[in-house]
Amino acid sequence: MPAEPSKDVPELRVGLLGLGTVGSAFAALLEERAGHIELLTGRRPVLAGVLTRERGSFEEVLRGADLIVELIGGIEPAREYALAAMNAGKDVVTANKQLLSSHGEELFDLARGRGVQLRFEAAVAGVVPVVRVLEESLAGAHIERIHGIVNGTTNFILTEMAHGLTYAQALAEAQRRGFAEADPSDDVSGRDAAAKMAILARLAFGTPVRLEQVRYEGIEHLQGDDLQYAQELGLGLKLIGTAERRDGGLSVRVHPAFLYAGHPLASVGGPFNAVTVESEAITEITMSGPGAGGRQTASAVLGDVVSAMLGLTTPPPPVVRLDLVEDVESAFYLHMEVADRPGVLAAVTQALGEQGVSIKSVVQRGMGENARLVMVTHPVLESSLRVALRRVGEFDFVRSSPRTIRVIEEEFT
Amino acid sequence: MPAEPSKDVPELRVGLLGLGTVGSAFAALLEERAGHIELLTGRRPVLAGVLTRERGSFEEVLRGADLIVELIGGIEPAREYALAAMNAGKDVVTANKQLLSSHGEELFDLARGRGVQLRFEAAVAGVVPVVRVLEESLAGAHIERIHGIVNGTTNFILTEMAHGLTYAQALAEAQRRGFAEADPSDDVSGRDAAAKMAILARLAFGTPVRLEQVRYEGIEHLQGDDLQYAQELGLGLKLIGTAERRDGGLSVRVHPAFLYAGHPLASVGGPFNAVTVESEAITEITMSGPGAGGRQTASAVLGDVVSAMLGLTTPPPPVVRLDLVEDVESAFYLHMEVADRPGVLAAVTQALGEQGVSIKSVVQRGMGENARLVMVTHPVLESSLRVALRRVGEFDFVRSSPRTIRVIEEEFT
Repeated sequence: MPAEPSKDVPELRVGLLGLGTVGSAFAALLEERAGHIELLTGRRPVLAGVLTRERGSFEEVLRGADLIVELIGGIEPAREYALAAMNAGKDVVTANKQLLSSHGEELFDLARGRGVQLRFEAAVAGVVPVVRVLEESLAGAHIERIHGIVNGTTNFILTEMAHGLTYAQALAEAQRRGFAEADPSDDVSGRDAAAKMAILARLAFGTPVRLEQVRYEGIEHLQGDDLQYAQELGLGLKLIGTAERRDGGLSVRVHPAFLYAGHPLASVGGPFNAVTVESEAITEITMSGPGAGGRQTASAVLGDVVSAMLGLTTPPPPVVRLDLVEDVESAFYLHMEVADRPGVLAAVTQALGEQGVSIKSVVQRGMGENARLVMVTHPVLESSLRVALRRVGEFDFVRSSPRTIRVIEEEFT
Repeated sequence: MPAEPSKDVPELRVGLLGLGTVGSAFAALLEERAGHIELLTGRRPVLAGVLTRERGSFEEVLRGADLIVELIGGIEPAREYALAAMNAGKDVVTANKQLLSSHGEELFDLARGRGVQLRFEAAVAGVVPVVRVLEESLAGAHIERIHGIVNGTTNFILTEMAHGLTYAQALAEAQRRGFAEADPSDDVSGRDAAAKMAILARLAFGTPVRLEQVRYEGIEHLQGDDLQYAQELGLGLKLIGTAERRDGGLSVRVHPAFLYAGHPLASVGGPFNAVTVESEAITEITMSGPGAGGRQTASAVLGDVVSAMLGLTTPPPPVVRLDLVEDVESAFYLHMEVADRPGVLAAVTQALGEQGVSIKSVVQRGMGENARLVMVTHPVLESSLRVALRRVGEFDFVRSSPRTIRVIEEEFT
């Protein structure tokens, strides 16, 4: 129940850009919580103007607002509006991962230059407060690595596939329940997660990272038997974003990965997001929560509005520029179908061995004329593995080109 | 490697009270990270003075410091020092849960009155940034409930007991590995967790809660077969702190509890801490990380120092005063030994039923002349259950007085 409007309390006038699922939920939540926020901050937030595709003028909304909440999404005109708002001396709260992962430095520079706040918790991991924790709690820490499940759609699909659904069935179920859009390509390709990892890498390592610099793989090519294999071995199969120090530089990437059972992200199911931050001094912190949902995202946006009202600071300037490392070592799971005849395993392992790919475990299962070969490698440079697999793919006994999934093994830096 | 001291950079002079495990680790970490913090904040933190039991004078340390880090522990003289520092206009960072759970309001009031910062992330859940998240990310949220594993010692002991050790063996192992003190009573009695829940309740619900107002039970009375029973049913058995809205008031308590397998805290093992915050708008957020360790705790303290340097605000004033509710409904697991003869189960269930205790499941196992009776009840007021169990304890066929453990069932508020 909204509290009665108080008299003589200064207002914070919020200008809202976009009135879709999150925008509508934000407007409702703002009204519900206005009384509480007034008690906390001494000012009462009110919705002073709304811009939608159909109605309103940006200039009018901006003129009447102390703070702009940008929930349009996409690059333009969101970028233009955010820049204009900050140029007018107004704080900006946004949930726009595309914008931040493409034009983050331009926006951060302007925020610093104008002394205004730019807050974006909802852009990264739903309600999981990883932006705040990186900006503040861990500001003094030397972070080694971030692993994240930062796309709820794909995590939901993988959870359903682990329960026996095919990829197509799981996707349809996600769409039916509102966890996936009609065109799910941004999610299932890994691109959405890549944008979020670019933002997290910028925060954790002080190095500007753009979406185009993040290598990503999606979940479209995963097969039911990959998940079955994972379950037999007690492994989780997740779409994992990684940002980590590697070889004196920084590697940022997104790909499906097998996680050992004790990994803090292995048990994160459904449309949840979760992020693990590793640093020698703290060991690790894991945070999880719903990754999607209008009201949940709106709640993260509202948290940013309250922070802005309390006058908390903007992200610090870049402090380090690490080179981006493209080619990193991982352990790999390999899956291929081969003719079931003598000498095949020897030929495959020799071709792998020539590129320094060493095999940790192998399971061969006959299926009539053919056999299925499943191997897990020791950590190896991805480029070496690709060369080796091209070689293997040329053998006449290979019936399907080898599939690969990375394996995250138990380790601490 | 510490960076070279920069020239002409303003310093932040840190006065350190206490040079035990955490204090020493903090001093080392401060030196390691000084260069990085200088880049972030524009000031270089330096250790300007140290007070130990053996050497140093508080007045001198205070005079030479811009910020005081209090790591002495206990109430006095920590309270006196913190008050004196804030009265002198200096920010205070502390890891002192006893102090905050007994004299929090006095300290918060002074911090607000003097316009200084009082930060205490390390007092609650090790490196898990729950204080920051409650103060900022969730400042606008209507929080319904917090569940926490906020004592790493007891969580380590329970994890070892789940692996088959007795309580005594697990405690000895915890002591050997430095997770428990020689006198573990503060941890195993639940008192340490109760102090932390008092602080969390204050932050989440805006209601001052003192340690004496928190009901707590420890883990000393748990038996191996309780854990065995939990495992058979796929339940976790944890020492859980709860702070939640109940019957228009607030209930804050600590006790062992069975958690259903999917509960976010069920899989938290070893000396880890974890906190789940539930609110209708966010659904739930869970955060976990190491709950102990000098370097880990020092890292949380350093995060607070950086926040203070960035000028982030102090906790808001109390906004609501909820009554503390003592008697709350829970589901219970009951365990008792009875003579194995006809009519026993009927008599027990009738005595329970007279107090409104309704049984959800029951397992009776013969052991020669006696039988073991394990029941799980539907949610019932604790006071009603206690009355019923006193009645049951009077039957001549009861061989051991009934043991009870709460059960946390799947639900969302």
